[in-house]
Amino acid sequence: MAGVFITIEGADGAGKSTQIEKLKHYLSCKGYDIILCREPGGTVISEEIRKVILNKEFTEMGDMTELLLYTSARAQLVEQVIRPALKDGKIVICDRFVDSSAVYQGIARGMGIDLVYEVNRYAIGKTMPDITILLDIPGSAGIQRKKKQGELDRMELETASFHDKVSEGYRILAEKFPERIKKLDGTQPIEVIFDQIKEIVKNIIQ
Amino acid sequence: MAGVFITIEGADGAGKSTQIEKLKHYLSCKGYDIILCREPGGTVISEEIRKVILNKEFTEMGDMTELLLYTSARAQLVEQVIRPALKDGKIVICDRFVDSSAVYQGIARGMGIDLVYEVNRYAIGKTMPDITILLDIPGSAGIQRKKKQGELDRMELETASFHDKVSEGYRILAEKFPERIKKLDGTQPIEVIFDQIKEIVKNIIQ
Repeated sequence: MAGVFITIEGADGAGKSTQIEKLKHYLSCKGYDIILCREPGGTVISEEIRKVILNKEFTEMGDMTELLLYTSARAQLVEQVIRPALKDGKIVICDRFVDSSAVYQGIARGMGIDLVYEVNRYAIGKTMPDITILLDIPGSAGIQRKKKQGELDRMELETASFHDKVSEGYRILAEKFPERIKKLDGTQPIEVIFDQIKEIVKNIIQ
Repeated sequence: MAGVFITIEGADGAGKSTQIEKLKHYLSCKGYDIILCREPGGTVISEEIRKVILNKEFTEMGDMTELLLYTSARAQLVEQVIRPALKDGKIVICDRFVDSSAVYQGIARGMGIDLVYEVNRYAIGKTMPDITILLDIPGSAGIQRKKKQGELDRMELETASFHDKVSEGYRILAEKFPERIKKLDGTQPIEVIFDQIKEIVKNIIQ
């Protein structure tokens, strides 16, 4: 039996971690074998790459360098964690995946969605999510939440206009891939959102 | 006036550093403005990526992760150092460049030369070397030299058969691009090799 690959997307501070924890707990209690991962990161090597990507001193990082670093961290995660888990029939829940690059580098940085998927094809091959849950929030809302949680990283420190483009970019992506990307209103109460996520996930793991 | 882009290639321990120092000194004395760089590295960010690539603990690194990491470090070096220097009419001498990836990942790792140049196109665009000097040595010779110099990194710790493939790979590459890649016998005395390098470089900077 092949596994199921679920990704959660959304701007920083959209509430992804909260919903992932709830989903993991819910599915574990139903007896499913769950693998959680996050991007960039999820393996020892990818976490080292994460440190380079998010280092807030590295303001001179070029857009292509950034895209390739995200892609290299993803390549390692896919090879070492995601593909083996799916082969073993597990449910993989990943906090961000290739759609994050499509939005952050492709749309917000202006590199183009097609270029981003093209480069990422080398890293992920055919390993695309079965379903992607997008927590949609207004551009500035998430970063306000993040600021209260502690120090911001290089991406989070981007301009307000960048974060607006990210939120808008996710909406564009959801319209482009309506079958795979399910957009939920991230400003709703946590339990309301989680009920909607359960409905979506039930349909895919039956 | 556009600058000149010279790269030096060869297996580990082929004597690249020695020749690069001599060439830099020679051209500086003639009044040329020289920029030296090395790969992977050459910028603050690329040096951080270098640490990830060469970390000898990271034996689980996938081939595609490795290729993408080299490519990301290269993207930053090209954008931040090489392209601006060439635009200013300087002579850039780089210790390894895209041909290293073609040989190490393309041939020795077996990913294919075409794939490596394809992925690298995103990082370097049209910024290819005007001339490439290859110091050709037998597979095992360089690593013996390196061992005497100190601790080996993740790439240097590869098997003897890997290092043989690298040396052979460089020969294949030199045959593929005879106009650009000038193969010199790296087992000759230092001064003999340097005379040959001077001849090659004279032709390109006239």
